[in-house]
Amino acid sequence: MQSRILSRRDLDFLLHEWLDASALTRRAHYAEHSRETLDAAIETCARIASEHFAPINRLLDTEEPRFDGERVHSPEPLKKALKVFTDAGLMAAGFDFEYGGMQLPYTVERACFAWFHAACIGGAAYPFLTMGNANLLLAHGSQQQIDTYVRPMLEGRWFGTMCLSEPQAGSSLSDVRTRAERQPDGSYRLFGNKMWISGGEQDITENIVHLVLAKVPDEQGRLLPGVKGISLFVVPKMLVNDDGSLGEHNDVVLAGLNHKMGYRGITNTLLNFGEGSFRPGGQAGAIGWLVGKEQQGLACMFHMMNEARIGVGMGAAALGYTAYLHALDYARNRPQGRPPQGKDPATPQIDIIEHADVRRMLLAAKSYAEGGLALNLYCARLVDEQRTGLDEDARERAHLLLELLTPVCKSWPSQWCQEANSLAIQVHGGYGYTRDYMVEQFYRDQRLNPIHEGTHGIQGIDLLGRKVRLQGGRTLELFAEEVARTVARTVARAAHAGDEWAAAGRAVIETRTRLDAVAAKLHTLGDLDRTLANASIFLEAFGHLVVAWIWLEQALCAQAALERGGAGLHPDEHAFYSGKLQAARFFLRWELPKVGPMIDFLDSVDTTALTMRDAWF
Amino acid sequence: MQSRILSRRDLDFLLHEWLDASALTRRAHYAEHSRETLDAAIETCARIASEHFAPINRLLDTEEPRFDGERVHSPEPLKKALKVFTDAGLMAAGFDFEYGGMQLPYTVERACFAWFHAACIGGAAYPFLTMGNANLLLAHGSQQQIDTYVRPMLEGRWFGTMCLSEPQAGSSLSDVRTRAERQPDGSYRLFGNKMWISGGEQDITENIVHLVLAKVPDEQGRLLPGVKGISLFVVPKMLVNDDGSLGEHNDVVLAGLNHKMGYRGITNTLLNFGEGSFRPGGQAGAIGWLVGKEQQGLACMFHMMNEARIGVGMGAAALGYTAYLHALDYARNRPQGRPPQGKDPATPQIDIIEHADVRRMLLAAKSYAEGGLALNLYCARLVDEQRTGLDEDARERAHLLLELLTPVCKSWPSQWCQEANSLAIQVHGGYGYTRDYMVEQFYRDQRLNPIHEGTHGIQGIDLLGRKVRLQGGRTLELFAEEVARTVARTVARAAHAGDEWAAAGRAVIETRTRLDAVAAKLHTLGDLDRTLANASIFLEAFGHLVVAWIWLEQALCAQAALERGGAGLHPDEHAFYSGKLQAARFFLRWELPKVGPMIDFLDSVDTTALTMRDAWF
Repeated sequence: MQSRILSRRDLDFLLHEWLDASALTRRAHYAEHSRETLDAAIETCARIASEHFAPINRLLDTEEPRFDGERVHSPEPLKKALKVFTDAGLMAAGFDFEYGGMQLPYTVERACFAWFHAACIGGAAYPFLTMGNANLLLAHGSQQQIDTYVRPMLEGRWFGTMCLSEPQAGSSLSDVRTRAERQPDGSYRLFGNKMWISGGEQDITENIVHLVLAKVPDEQGRLLPGVKGISLFVVPKMLVNDDGSLGEHNDVVLAGLNHKMGYRGITNTLLNFGEGSFRPGGQAGAIGWLVGKEQQGLACMFHMMNEARIGVGMGAAALGYTAYLHALDYARNRPQGRPPQGKDPATPQIDIIEHADVRRMLLAAKSYAEGGLALNLYCARLVDEQRTGLDEDARERAHLLLELLTPVCKSWPSQWCQEANSLAIQVHGGYGYTRDYMVEQFYRDQRLNPIHEGTHGIQGIDLLGRKVRLQGGRTLELFAEEVARTVARTVARAAHAGDEWAAAGRAVIETRTRLDAVAAKLHTLGDLDRTLANASIFLEAFGHLVVAWIWLEQALCAQAALERGGAGLHPDEHAFYSGKLQAARFFLRWELPKVGPMIDFLDSVDTTALTMRDAWF
Repeated sequence: MQSRILSRRDLDFLLHEWLDASALTRRAHYAEHSRETLDAAIETCARIASEHFAPINRLLDTEEPRFDGERVHSPEPLKKALKVFTDAGLMAAGFDFEYGGMQLPYTVERACFAWFHAACIGGAAYPFLTMGNANLLLAHGSQQQIDTYVRPMLEGRWFGTMCLSEPQAGSSLSDVRTRAERQPDGSYRLFGNKMWISGGEQDITENIVHLVLAKVPDEQGRLLPGVKGISLFVVPKMLVNDDGSLGEHNDVVLAGLNHKMGYRGITNTLLNFGEGSFRPGGQAGAIGWLVGKEQQGLACMFHMMNEARIGVGMGAAALGYTAYLHALDYARNRPQGRPPQGKDPATPQIDIIEHADVRRMLLAAKSYAEGGLALNLYCARLVDEQRTGLDEDARERAHLLLELLTPVCKSWPSQWCQEANSLAIQVHGGYGYTRDYMVEQFYRDQRLNPIHEGTHGIQGIDLLGRKVRLQGGRTLELFAEEVARTVARTVARAAHAGDEWAAAGRAVIETRTRLDAVAAKLHTLGDLDRTLANASIFLEAFGHLVVAWIWLEQALCAQAALERGGAGLHPDEHAFYSGKLQAARFFLRWELPKVGPMIDFLDSVDTTALTMRDAWF
């Protein structure tokens, strides 16, 4: 049985019925596109993901890349799948025509690539990192850097990495110790170790473009402490000659592979820069070139961080989504047990989807997976608005909302779509715990997401410590306006459709109001330790509120479609919209109320964790 | 760094300061024991678990048992560890002296074996299944069966299994299709397939004793439908001669090994009975002997079910506990970042345990792990009371409380100690996601626990559908009495210690009262489908309430010790009790309030899952 990777019907609903992505094609930047070209891009991705990536997902898990001391070996089928991907021009799908790209709206590009996340998250990570790298160079690199590195990456001939963490500095970038020493010719020589570098070494492409955070020592050879001293460098594995051909091996070597619980399709590496294994130009030190200006490295990197975090959130949602679909297929085809009121053992067993508890699990998984996908597509739509909004005000508004929602779109699916993954195993029973069913791998793959691209705790501090206060709290005001707009629509329609959604809308407003008050209270304490002590809980409360609002939005959209369609609606369409309403009901009735005790706890300014002492553990 | 497996200090607190396990030695059955012999048993287990089991835990994960088509191969170090275990007489620790056992109180035996669960849950599963098997035969087998099978098992020469599930009948035992055909000599011949059989084949012991559920056909060869037709059989892998030596290979063969996400130390098998690969006595069919009476098989099996479920709950708590201790060690030794109010990058990094969010994660993990362990030891104490209570009333009371709490002691740690396992990974950051740290394996091992020995959903139906109504609801009344007794103690002491615990006690009582009312309401609906639709949520609500009460009990015990000790208390002891109070605070302030929205949802008799249709997914 071949389970679906994602739901094309749901993507159409989200992109077109809800987010009106086609409207973007009326903007100058996307004017070459139409609903047809957008659909064709999604169709292509769905097909390639199904035919070339999903079938190798388990193989990449069992045949982890290995290092024989000299080189890394990746499974051949991965190389083939990635070649199909790049041959189809997908590496450049989101890039401008001038770079050979398709210039797709970001919203649609994300929807396209959700298929690869869902089909094979590890293998798909190579192109995603490469695109992020290329984006960063386009934004901050020189023309020469763009010509030298971006083009080969977009052609899929080279892949890229992001080298931030070090063994002694994971979340704490201010402690980066990699040194970049200025050379007379304007280049730099880098010395240091980088940890957790995905794709840091591989045997798939002939070159690897590393983007590396490092510090330039002052005249006394000292590194400026803190994040302010950080600069960004492009450091290719193989040096590039003026004609674009490959030259000497740079002084970057693999120190070892990390062996992960899941997400094994891509190597994860410890890299040594400048240890002298190779001596380009007869001298130790990895040769690199400054991107942007000195001491602006973190700003450059953070320029891409929102999009990288949407990427992680989208991957998390896709993993939850495909697990949900696998569980759904299983539940529809596995006979077991009988209904509570008809336990006659002489009757045949029923498919387990008939059991209320199995439906509860599937409905929960659906609400998390579809909620997570919708949230991330909404944020992707904000990226498009930020890029191409019709006026400065619209662009600024989108920018601020995106700043506020980024920690949520990264962390919420990482947490709740893991719950979807767990429920997908539970629906399978014992079979789900075996490696014969994909849900087992999805669960392991997913567990990375609350860790990379800023841990859950880091997202909480970002949200409560920074994002809710941007421009004097304008971010929260904008969010309040969005929620109010949605709820006004529920009230407007309450007259002719009962007040189910109006009541839900009131609950969303009430929760939002209380959470705003708590954020304000926490920031008047005058004690940053107490303000931030439960930042993770604030993140989780706010996340659930945001997704409740996203579900209310979807419900209104589905309800309107049902009313428009009336009795003439095709039964499949009627079922689709009814499912949306039921999932929205589930989330608003069962999930949203969970926020209440979180707010109570935050409002009490609880210090149980803060005052806990090391010796008491 | 060698992390602790469990906390000996906490075990002493739970066993002696809280549950007064030594008092059991004043009972006739345990009169040979004293605090010293109980401590010695725990010390022995702690030592053997640390020296022989913990060191091979990762090995058993990476070198999974394999089947070469002829036989199964297990790692040699496992065989050695199990030999140390049985040579120390531990297989019989909980058995009576007349069987060569130590006749330990059940509470202490469970505490002893928690060390093996925590050190190496997969490998330890062989003896645990064997003990359960031996217990069942002692309770229901004939003297000859006891002599033939139990003694070799308690000597560790043979291991045992429990064969319930079949490929088409996992949770639904009424659909068991294995046939047991009566033979003229009083034996039976069995034909059928058994799935998910842990330890069903191995190369560790010379024989394997299978306990098998099967149905005896009537004169027309039909199997009685439903659970009533089920009988229990003992079916050895190798037939046993009258002198106890091994005879012919029985007609039981391994059809295949299941390959699991974790818990890999023990084989999990599909077994074929009676397919004729071996033909004992020249005839196909696995030779078995009836245990107890025909059609009483499920009753026999369920006799042991409470203890098996405490076993799973204890294993889950132990996995959460050891993961918590590993994370604690890591957090105390990993410098990273700086406090919110002292971010000067020129200062050294602090150990991550200094971060409030890390302390929050550790405190949560502590409250789940210690809460789960305490809950299961409390239930084990009920088993002792059920066995050796001073009068019929005390025994009956313990029995009913145990019936009520069994679904909770199995399911609560399976759910919440997985959360502890996840937090332990999160505390490790990227390292926790690699296979270099044990927390990664604990997380995978744990995921089995909500599935085996009755899934989470099955436990919910057992609790709400059956247990809360036993003897007209006497079970809930008894629980109410226990809670009231605890809370009365908080009120009694409120005068001289502020009213922190009295307030917590009121919250526990209030939650209990509401939950009782909801149970009653659900049972007056007159519609079993609606009554049971959200049984899993009822289970989770009740479980959290029970553990809140267990934490209140621990807090009172710790508070009393602090007051008794006064200023003369050793600082380590002061720290230990302070930690207990802080964990209790965490649970009562942060976890207990989560039950509120669950009760609201149950009280609304929500039918969102029940009315969801297949076509709407």
